[in-house]
Amino acid sequence: MIDQPVSLEDMEPLRIVVLGGDGFCGWPTSLYLSARGNDVTIADNLSRRRIDEELGVSSLTPIRPLDERVRAWREVSGLEIDVAVLDVARDYDALLELLERFRPEAVVHFAEQRAAPYSMKSSRHKRYTVDNNVNATHNLLAALVEAELDCHVVHLGTMGVYGYQSAGVPIPEGYLNVSLAPEADAVEKEILYPVDPGSVYHTTKTLDQLLFAFYAKNDELRITDLHQGIVWGTETDQTALDERLINRFDYDGDYGTVLNRFLMQAAIGYPLTVHGTGGQTRAFIHIRDTVRCIELAMSNPPERGDRVQIYNQTTEVHRVIDLAEIVAGLTGAEIDLVDNPRKEAPENELAVENQRLLGLGLEPTTLQDDLLREVTQVASKYLDRVDRSMIPCKSRWVRHHRDDGRGPDLTAPVSDGAAPSGA
Amino acid sequence: MIDQPVSLEDMEPLRIVVLGGDGFCGWPTSLYLSARGNDVTIADNLSRRRIDEELGVSSLTPIRPLDERVRAWREVSGLEIDVAVLDVARDYDALLELLERFRPEAVVHFAEQRAAPYSMKSSRHKRYTVDNNVNATHNLLAALVEAELDCHVVHLGTMGVYGYQSAGVPIPEGYLNVSLAPEADAVEKEILYPVDPGSVYHTTKTLDQLLFAFYAKNDELRITDLHQGIVWGTETDQTALDERLINRFDYDGDYGTVLNRFLMQAAIGYPLTVHGTGGQTRAFIHIRDTVRCIELAMSNPPERGDRVQIYNQTTEVHRVIDLAEIVAGLTGAEIDLVDNPRKEAPENELAVENQRLLGLGLEPTTLQDDLLREVTQVASKYLDRVDRSMIPCKSRWVRHHRDDGRGPDLTAPVSDGAAPSGA
Repeated sequence: MIDQPVSLEDMEPLRIVVLGGDGFCGWPTSLYLSARGNDVTIADNLSRRRIDEELGVSSLTPIRPLDERVRAWREVSGLEIDVAVLDVARDYDALLELLERFRPEAVVHFAEQRAAPYSMKSSRHKRYTVDNNVNATHNLLAALVEAELDCHVVHLGTMGVYGYQSAGVPIPEGYLNVSLAPEADAVEKEILYPVDPGSVYHTTKTLDQLLFAFYAKNDELRITDLHQGIVWGTETDQTALDERLINRFDYDGDYGTVLNRFLMQAAIGYPLTVHGTGGQTRAFIHIRDTVRCIELAMSNPPERGDRVQIYNQTTEVHRVIDLAEIVAGLTGAEIDLVDNPRKEAPENELAVENQRLLGLGLEPTTLQDDLLREVTQVASKYLDRVDRSMIPCKSRWVRHHRDDGRGPDLTAPVSDGAAPSGA
Repeated sequence: MIDQPVSLEDMEPLRIVVLGGDGFCGWPTSLYLSARGNDVTIADNLSRRRIDEELGVSSLTPIRPLDERVRAWREVSGLEIDVAVLDVARDYDALLELLERFRPEAVVHFAEQRAAPYSMKSSRHKRYTVDNNVNATHNLLAALVEAELDCHVVHLGTMGVYGYQSAGVPIPEGYLNVSLAPEADAVEKEILYPVDPGSVYHTTKTLDQLLFAFYAKNDELRITDLHQGIVWGTETDQTALDERLINRFDYDGDYGTVLNRFLMQAAIGYPLTVHGTGGQTRAFIHIRDTVRCIELAMSNPPERGDRVQIYNQTTEVHRVIDLAEIVAGLTGAEIDLVDNPRKEAPENELAVENQRLLGLGLEPTTLQDDLLREVTQVASKYLDRVDRSMIPCKSRWVRHHRDDGRGPDLTAPVSDGAAPSGA
């Protein structure tokens, strides 16, 4: 597949739209792509900020309004990032107008609700997640066909589509050859690697995959789907240039990813809350590698008519309890094993193939390299901004059924704990 | 799986909601289930009638307004069918209220846009189909969880999720055991049979499958998905009781299914329009068998915690050209081979397993049994209602690209012809 990867130095600058460019991955990606000489436009409906308001939480780091962010970037770098405030899932006409006017050569698609616990909070949250994520993805695909744009779509998927279970065989990068007839080995077919999502959020990413496959086949759209591990870290070289460029750091029970939650908990002397035994094994990647992977993918687009190009965008695999112990060892924090609100295997094996991005030149940032710096330079610095009541995970995967057979007991206590969420 | 099927005689009457109960399959199903002693409520937003207005077409048969239909049914049968006019995809609160008040034991879910050509007409039609179908299905699932209803969902899927290609092996009923590691045979997994949808409409049914799988796993909803072949015929024993109960008969290029289109074309002396060579092989079922299959599925629900139960709801497999020749032989009609507007294999093999519904007692209505009656008693009877300009298929699957490399030529002529659509 990747015979001669395009090195980043050889790459022509592109016109790029970043959908969801105000979010946790979208903002540092936008800055990085701008710093690398591309002409970047952010399209975002600012929904992530509204969800903070809904949940009554704030980023640990003091993120600035989007207009202040791009103004600061212009001051610091001399580079311009345009902003279009629009809702990709609901304002199709505005999306189409942007694509027709700007005629991007690539679109990075982050415009989805990305927290598994949030997607399971209530019927309304489930429906918002499905409606928003499916329509955002499909509006983009339909608009590219309508605008007659031969534009590379780079989408952030998640390793969670596979249910974090590799059953002794490393999860390949997207595809599997199967036999349609067990007794007639000759009938082989290449299929998307089988999915097994564990939340409504993860399910939406499996729906995205099928939409991508159809539009790649029917309309020859060029699409790369990056199945990302759980992101940790906050800062990239660009966001660290000026405090006004700082990236968000979520620590609440819905949006905080497990390792960032541990780092913050350690910094404030809160026990590291581990769900169940902590035997859940998950795939991880540092935010600095996220932005580089997106550029690597963008530099090596598929051809028209190719199947969807899929990469496993992850650099390390760890058990949650091992992460807790590493953080505890670095900081002296205690570990608290709490009930698991999720419906998931208490322990699992996970192995993931990730040779494709490494083959393109990715040099991973490992936990060993950067963990302590994150604790001391980010988590500790903004301690006074922590609201401890927001740390527990309040979303339940299933209703608690009463013993009398009369159905769920909605007064049952909810377990607290750090969910291995966010991917 | 089906050790002791429940025979229809043993069945207790159920409270049943039919979503989309005013449509081509929904109306005869509602009447049949009512006639069989069940307490039936129809929920429908009447969107199919609005689409007739949008397209400027009418059913060949003079269908009556829904309120007149149910009034006529009460007169004819003495049985009551309640009606709730609501939009399952948009009026979640009304759907939830209906489910909480009526507390159905089964819901039949037809509330989806069901024409492949319509789903490909334009960006707006693609987006309507995705938005409507995904949200309708997901709203139902979320509402059943919120209402704490242990209710059997019977959904109309389509054989088209598999792309009408069996590649020498009959398509099984829903599932396939695959090896995750070609070199390590031990690692087996049961997966949904691989999909390969050929339109946005068919793609939405593949998205439905994944939503069903998640809710069956996470919330133990009991779900049956019926992958139906292309429906032909119009009348059932109930709709034939009184002209006010008549079912719709679509003959236009978007909603008319291939065999019904041939029957009508033959009746008015229009050549039978076959796309390409007519080598497309498709699966078929008569509308009378549709309604019986739904009752058979409903009488044999899965248990809580079971995987989604999937049946191939089809009774015969034919090549389109063979159907045209059968109709031509019966009626003397000519056959016209026209360009195919669809992106599909010109010829294909198709074999389908359908033992499960036969095992429950289905006795199929075959083409041989009923074809001529449909022509003489339905198609011929309403000939004066035909608008010949509505016969050609105007939807294109892909844009026509200009030879100069400057993109699509939107002035290119559009081919006409009878699409093997509607399933």
